[in-house]
Amino acid sequence: MIEKHLTSLQNPLVKQVIHLRDRHERDKTGLFLIEGYREILRAVDAGWKLEQLLVCSELFLGSNEPTLIQRIASRGTQVITASEKVFQKISYRDRPDGLLAIAPQRTTKLSDFNLQNRANKHPFYVVAEAIEKPGNLGTILRSSDAVGVSGLIVCDRCTDIYNPNVVRASVGTLFTVPTVEAQGEETLRWLKEQGIAILAATPSATHAFTQVDLVGPLAIAVGTEQLGLSERWMKEADLQVRIPMNGVADSLNVAMATTLLLYEVLRQRQQAQL
Amino acid sequence: MIEKHLTSLQNPLVKQVIHLRDRHERDKTGLFLIEGYREILRAVDAGWKLEQLLVCSELFLGSNEPTLIQRIASRGTQVITASEKVFQKISYRDRPDGLLAIAPQRTTKLSDFNLQNRANKHPFYVVAEAIEKPGNLGTILRSSDAVGVSGLIVCDRCTDIYNPNVVRASVGTLFTVPTVEAQGEETLRWLKEQGIAILAATPSATHAFTQVDLVGPLAIAVGTEQLGLSERWMKEADLQVRIPMNGVADSLNVAMATTLLLYEVLRQRQQAQL
Repeated sequence: MIEKHLTSLQNPLVKQVIHLRDRHERDKTGLFLIEGYREILRAVDAGWKLEQLLVCSELFLGSNEPTLIQRIASRGTQVITASEKVFQKISYRDRPDGLLAIAPQRTTKLSDFNLQNRANKHPFYVVAEAIEKPGNLGTILRSSDAVGVSGLIVCDRCTDIYNPNVVRASVGTLFTVPTVEAQGEETLRWLKEQGIAILAATPSATHAFTQVDLVGPLAIAVGTEQLGLSERWMKEADLQVRIPMNGVADSLNVAMATTLLLYEVLRQRQQAQL
Repeated sequence: MIEKHLTSLQNPLVKQVIHLRDRHERDKTGLFLIEGYREILRAVDAGWKLEQLLVCSELFLGSNEPTLIQRIASRGTQVITASEKVFQKISYRDRPDGLLAIAPQRTTKLSDFNLQNRANKHPFYVVAEAIEKPGNLGTILRSSDAVGVSGLIVCDRCTDIYNPNVVRASVGTLFTVPTVEAQGEETLRWLKEQGIAILAATPSATHAFTQVDLVGPLAIAVGTEQLGLSERWMKEADLQVRIPMNGVADSLNVAMATTLLLYEVLRQRQQAQL
């Protein structure tokens, strides 16, 4: 099923891959890039469809690549080999490992979560409002996967979740954490309808995050790197907690703060034997 | 005290600043760069000596810069104004804010911590072994500041703590967290002498990090992004804990893992009313 061999930098597919680094092109085509063995493996394991797979065996780092390629090809995905020169050009990594896929984005809506909320007495979401840095969004996905959240809701997006650096920083957990992009207003309404309490971290809160009961249905809401959560979310929050800051700095990085809150929920729920 | 005005890109000082982005030059001269109002303010507040301050008022973002400049000049630091073109050239930020300092590095040794360990019944260190990414080291500093550690020990360094991106990611907490660079062997010996238990996180540990008593004298040891803590440290660890991983990924980013462990120590110590 290996169908083509790419050797020319002028090939339209080379240009398409490079264009897909830009959000404009991703929005227009509904496609995105998945680069790297681990990331592609996790996408495939999660049942994600791939449209095309580009491979360059000279760059493989391990010995499992052919098995993965075979698996992908057997599902009918087009596999295209590329010369090392071409692959270096299309890769956005410092050290490409010879695997890059083009895949269709998924469109999930908030209402797609309704069913799981009915089945789960303790739904547990993260709301990431207007996060700017792809690395932070990717890290939030990675921590969300680690604690096993019900879903991540990306509100009023600044960075789209299909940005190549989100995919990379998430180490492929983008494919396993149920993720939705939605507007703030709509998300607030939905959380209230579903009876899910909103938790916000703010330095002005009375209680530390380890002193507040986080066992019930919960959405952890976090905001931009510069300004934190917006006024609207802060006002609507059912629970406010602070993260102790004993030094000179007045805040943690947003991905750190989110990770701390996520694991505190996990700790409390494990203690309550849920 | 404003002594010079830099308008030429050929000026040797311009070249020196640019060279100081490289570790080789930092190691050779014992100098490093501090860029940005917040970072320089924290250095000055912490009593850090500055050698020269470069300023470009056209790029100031706020109105407090002249007060800070005055304060620095009154201590005898040479203040040099630069044209916008020159400042844009010497800045390593996307959005320079018109302040950049050259400062001497500090050389702190492990034995400099001995005195504080005698005064503090619950010393609390972080050992960061061979961390590669400056952003991770900076974030570890930021979390270390937030919980108020006794010190950070950078072992068998890959990234030096005076890398401009460490300074930036630390948001200036490099100047307030007591930090030492040391060799692994020496650090292990020193921790044992000081009666400080070593804590390592490993997926194979029986107990979760929230289930182990972390109240006593403690050093949290974390290792490289790719491979984690070395065999040597793992073997010498007095306590092993695991961070629950309920998803598909098998580990967290090293800065996340460190932050979780740091805050768990804080939680337990606050609960024990220390």
